This record gives sequence, structure tokens and C-alpha cells, in this order.
Amino acid sequence: MEALVRPIGSIETPYKKLNECPRNIEPNGPVCKLVISKDLIDGLYGLSVGQDILILYWFDNVDRNILQKHSKKTGEFSGVFALRSQNRPNPIGAAIVKIESIENESIYVKGLDCLSGTPLLDIKPAKFSEINR
Amino acid sequence: MEALVRPIGSIETPYKKLNECPRNIEPNGPVCKLVISKDLIDGLYGLSVGQDILILYWFDNVDRNILQKHSKKTGEFSGVFALRSQNRPNPIGAAIVKIESIENESIYVKGLDCLSGTPLLDIKPAKFSEINR
Repeated sequence: MEALVRPIGSIETPYKKLNECPRNIEPNGPVCKLVISKDLIDGLYGLSVGQDILILYWFDNVDRNILQKHSKKTGEFSGVFALRSQNRPNPIGAAIVKIESIENESIYVKGLDCLSGTPLLDIKPAKFSEINR
Repeated sequence: MEALVRPIGSIETPYKKLNECPRNIEPNGPVCKLVISKDLIDGLYGLSVGQDILILYWFDNVDRNILQKHSKKTGEFSGVFALRSQNRPNPIGAAIVKIESIENESIYVKGLDCLSGTPLLDIKPAKFSEINR
């Protein structure tokens, strides 16, 4: 089985280069914009300001064959499934963020850690809240 | 941009038909098994029993063109990005579950809501905990 993912839009952040990206989501970080494709706008109906959403996005240009590496955070040697590294067989990022505002085709959130232009794959109402680790 | 996802393994649950699947993750539900492909086992190194993991999986045979529908939970009419419906442009499921045990190439967890045989896309250490909604 193989399946195709297609972006539902893209993410605008202040980061143009990988070394500018913060290592983690920053709840009070800079404002970022989720720009939804015009033909999918109807899918946003029912989302509201203040709501927590789980977003999934796609890390482009990473190494999908790496299986183990040293954690940037702890230095420990681990498998990629025990790390949040972008380099993984299916490089899908996940973040829970609060909707700051909704304007036209865009949702504004804070503190994402990815490059500007990152393809957005999905938005779901969150069932989870962040815990300290 | 389009990208290919390839399963890293598959999920064994007690559910053979869609109408048997619970509507949500059940923290004390039946034991389910994440079977990892033999060539990716090294990626598990560092995961441990008791740890919360975020798993991503792929809903096969769904309608990726639906943009709005009635919530099965509340009856409300909503966009798919405001729902956890399986029918969505990129049908990726997300669940946070605790590792009950690890044996050979398999991770045992509890209470997943998907069909047996569902393709598994990713395992990440969780940064989030479930909240009541």
C-alpha cells in the first residue's frame, strides 16, 4: 500500500531557513498563518477562535531513510519513532495550537516550528492538550 | 506538491467491520497491536513501556472529497476540518495511547478505534495528553 497526500494549503511562518526554526512549538511565539486552498474553504465551517486544533504538515526535503540518530535535545541515541525529528519514514509534523483569529481563507495561530511554505495536510479539532515534556 | 506515504507497519484491532469500531479512542478498551515492518525495527529503539505515544494511521476506502457533513456525535453540520471524521482530504488518523508492552516487532496499546489491518504511518513520543472533549 502507498497513498498520496495532497496539501490542503500552506503554512506561513517567519522562518526562511532551517536553522532559524525553533526546536519546538512555542505557545507564545510569533504569529503564523494557515492559508487554506480556495476550493477547500468549506471544510473550515464550524472552527472558532480560541479553539485548540491539531494540525498535520509535511516536512519537505528530509531524509526518510534515517532510522536512528542522536537527539538534538538530549544527545541520546534513539530510534526515529522515539524522537520528534523531521527525518523519518513519513515526515509528517503534528502540532496542537490555539486559533487566534480566522480571516477569509486563513487561520492565525502562534509559535509553529516549521519553514514558511510548509505544506499543510490536515486540521482537526484537538482532543489533546500539551503536557510538559 | 504531492507526496507518497508508505506504511511503517499495520494495526491489529478486534474490529473487522466499520460498524464495529468505537467512535473514539477508549483508554481502557481492548488491547491492540502495532506491528512494525521488520526493516524499520531499529526506529523503535528508545521507546519504553508506560510512555505515551502519538500514532498516525491511514484510513483506507474513505471519501476524500467530502468537505462538510453532520457530526455523528452532535448532529451539527460542520466542515470536515472541524470534525474528526475519517472522510477528509488527507485521511490520516491521530491517537495518543500508552505503551502497554513491547514484544519483538510489536507494540501493544489499548482502545484504538480503527479497523484491523489499518496501515500505520508514524509513531512519535507524545507531547500532549488527552483532554475531555
